[in-house]
Amino acid sequence: MISRMRPLILLSNDDSVKASGLNALIEMLSPFGDLFVVAPDVPRSGASHALTVTTPITVDKIRESESLTVYACSGTPTDCVKVAMSCLLPRQPDLMVSGINHGSNSSVSVIYSGTMGAAIEAAMLGMPAMGFSLCDHSLNADFSASVKYGKIIVQEALTNGIPKGIALNVNIPALPAGKIKGIKVCRQNKGSWNEDFIMKPNPVTGEKLYWLTGYYHNEESGAEGTDETALSEGYISIVPTHFDLTAYGVIEEMKRFEEL
Amino acid sequence: MISRMRPLILLSNDDSVKASGLNALIEMLSPFGDLFVVAPDVPRSGASHALTVTTPITVDKIRESESLTVYACSGTPTDCVKVAMSCLLPRQPDLMVSGINHGSNSSVSVIYSGTMGAAIEAAMLGMPAMGFSLCDHSLNADFSASVKYGKIIVQEALTNGIPKGIALNVNIPALPAGKIKGIKVCRQNKGSWNEDFIMKPNPVTGEKLYWLTGYYHNEESGAEGTDETALSEGYISIVPTHFDLTAYGVIEEMKRFEEL
Repeated sequence: MISRMRPLILLSNDDSVKASGLNALIEMLSPFGDLFVVAPDVPRSGASHALTVTTPITVDKIRESESLTVYACSGTPTDCVKVAMSCLLPRQPDLMVSGINHGSNSSVSVIYSGTMGAAIEAAMLGMPAMGFSLCDHSLNADFSASVKYGKIIVQEALTNGIPKGIALNVNIPALPAGKIKGIKVCRQNKGSWNEDFIMKPNPVTGEKLYWLTGYYHNEESGAEGTDETALSEGYISIVPTHFDLTAYGVIEEMKRFEEL
Repeated sequence: MISRMRPLILLSNDDSVKASGLNALIEMLSPFGDLFVVAPDVPRSGASHALTVTTPITVDKIRESESLTVYACSGTPTDCVKVAMSCLLPRQPDLMVSGINHGSNSSVSVIYSGTMGAAIEAAMLGMPAMGFSLCDHSLNADFSASVKYGKIIVQEALTNGIPKGIALNVNIPALPAGKIKGIKVCRQNKGSWNEDFIMKPNPVTGEKLYWLTGYYHNEESGAEGTDETALSEGYISIVPTHFDLTAYGVIEEMKRFEEL
C-alpha cells in the first residue's frame, strides 16, 4: 500500500532488476519514502535513450510490500520510466533515481548510458531526477560509500529541489567512504571512446563476429571543473544535465546556411 | 574501388538498408563522392545513441560498385558508425550523413532518434556530420524536395566545413520543393512526448502487451527561432547539435551540493 503521506520515489537502472547496484539503491532510498521500481528484466547497458517501437513491451510485478513495489520490464530503461508514468504508478513521483550503475558514466559515457537515459527521460516528464554510477564495473562492487553519500545528495534534492528539466549525473569514485574528499559540481569532460572491435569467427559457422571494446581518450586531462578531474582527485562528481542538444555557440556562424 | 581523389562519404540511418529514405540519400550524395553505407539490417527507429554491448554484431556486404559500397549491420545506428570507422572504411571519411529519416526528428525527438544517434556519433569521432529527416512517416514519402535541398546543404558543408564536434539536425517539411520557403538555422524547440501505451492482451496467452504510442506537446508554440516554428512556416530547419549535456546555466545554483 503506497502512502499518500510519504514521498513516492521511482527507481530504475540499466543493469536489470537482478543487479546488486539496484539493491544498494533501494537501501539508499528506503529511509526517504515509498519505493516503486520499474527496471529491465535483463541487463541493457549502453541502451542510451532508446525506445522500443517495433514490438510491445511487457511488465511483471515481482515484489510488493508495504513500501516497495518492483516490476521487471522487457523494454529499455527509457521504456521503464514511460510505462511506469503512463500505466503503473499511482501518482506523480516526488523523485526519480536511476542506478546504482556498475561502472562510470562520467564524460561522454553519459551519451551511451541507459542509467542516465532513464534519469533524463524522468526529467523530460517533469520529475526531479538523478542517476548514480559507481566507478567500478565488477558485479560484486562495494556500494557502501555510494549509499552513504547518496543519502546526503537525495536528502538535499528532496528538501530544496533541483531545477525543472535537469537530471543530475552523479559519479562516485571506487574508494572507501573515508577516502572520498567530498562533492564537486562539474561540467562534462571532453573525451571520446575510440573503438576497437575484436573480430572472432563464430566457432560453429565461421561468420565474422565483431565484439565492441575500446578505450577512453581524455582530451583535457586535469582540466579544471570537469567530472573526470574531480573523480581522479577523489571527489564525487555531479554534472547537471539537460536534454537541449542545441550548440548555441555556433548558431550565428551557421546562419550562412540561410543564404543558400 | 574507392578513389583517393574524390570525397569519401559515410552514410547510415535507422530505417534499415531497405528504406526508400536511404535510396534518396544515395541519390542526394552520389554527385559529391564515393559513398560507403553501413546501415542496420532491419529497422531500428528509436535507437537513440544505443550500443550493442552484450552480444557481438555482424556485417554483410550486400552491394559493391565503383562508387557505392553497402553493408547491412546487425547492430544499432551508432554501432554502424563505430564498426565502419574501426573495421570497414579504407580511410577517414570527409563527411558523414544519416537518413533520410521517414518522420520528423525536430524538437526533443532528436533525443530518441537513431538517425541523429549515428550523426552525433560521427561528430564524436571527429567527422563533419549531419542527419536528414523528412516530416512524413509514410513508407512511400516523396523525398524529391529533400534531395534537392539536401544537395545544397551538403555542398556548403563540403566547401566551407562545419565546426568540429557538431552534427546538423536537418528537418524538411512535407511540402513540394516549390512550396519550401528556404532554410532557417534554429534552436531545439521545448516540448515533450506524452506517452499513452495501448494495452492489448496477447491473443494467444492473454499476457498484457504494452504498445508505445503518444502525442507531442509543444511547450512554446510559435516561439521565435525554434525548429518547430520554422517547419510550421514552411522552412527547412537546421539545429546544430553537440554532445555536451552539461546544463551550464545551473552549475552555480547546484554548487550548494558541495557544502553537504
